[in-house]
Amino acid sequence: MHDHQRYFEDFRVGQRFESGGLTITEDAIIGFAAQWDPQPFHLDAEYARTKGHFGGLIASGLHTMCATLRLWLADRIFIDCTIGSPGVDEARFLKPVRPGDTLRVVTELLELRPSRSKPDRGSVKMRHTTLNQHGETVMTMDARVILRKRPA
Amino acid sequence: MHDHQRYFEDFRVGQRFESGGLTITEDAIIGFAAQWDPQPFHLDAEYARTKGHFGGLIASGLHTMCATLRLWLADRIFIDCTIGSPGVDEARFLKPVRPGDTLRVVTELLELRPSRSKPDRGSVKMRHTTLNQHGETVMTMDARVILRKRPA
Repeated sequence: MHDHQRYFEDFRVGQRFESGGLTITEDAIIGFAAQWDPQPFHLDAEYARTKGHFGGLIASGLHTMCATLRLWLADRIFIDCTIGSPGVDEARFLKPVRPGDTLRVVTELLELRPSRSKPDRGSVKMRHTTLNQHGETVMTMDARVILRKRPA
Repeated sequence: MHDHQRYFEDFRVGQRFESGGLTITEDAIIGFAAQWDPQPFHLDAEYARTKGHFGGLIASGLHTMCATLRLWLADRIFIDCTIGSPGVDEARFLKPVRPGDTLRVVTELLELRPSRSKPDRGSVKMRHTTLNQHGETVMTMDARVILRKRPA
């Protein structure tokens, strides 16, 4: 156990964490879309400008979710005590993410619940709010993660 | 307009679509994790085998979501009439996805709702069920997409 080791018991409802930033380039938007979400408004700048509903290329919602996870994990808040995640709820794509936007994530702990069946762990529900460089919320999503309790 | 062009009006609740398959290699699991979800049970086979809770490397839940979207889109069901997506609900990671697993997706249309404010479009809610090569459900998620109506 080193200085930064934290466990389920070390967190409380209402805690907030703010991430660093990640700039989403046009190349990254197109590269992500080509691999996972090949729809023309994510993939083809000319189509997006002339025929899309957003006036230009926008990032895949899953790209924004992935960027959100990466930014959250970079601060290593839960990194040594996470067992896994049972799921994600209510991902909402509220504003387009466009080439050159810089995203950051504010994370709030909404709920902490010890496991009833397994005494060595508990679950945390958190809300990630992803903002762009103008302070506009581009996405929110809730994630649940299972954390180890402090060894007896 | 070509033969395959479909619109909001061409779909109905209860329709089901089955995708092809995608095999998730160990390299793909580690590559995805390195970029988006660098947690040791996704990234480090030795850690995952000896210290993880799943007895070996498992894919990021977001990797499974991305693979699900790719498999769904490959059949181009909505490809020419999609405007965008407002969000994703209730992604549930039900069983681990391990190196070499081949995923496929069954998609069912749950709800079709014309827009009240915009007469040129409607929304569809669908459930993606992602299965492995043993027929086990590894993930479910619900997605909402906005579709164009047939031009008047």
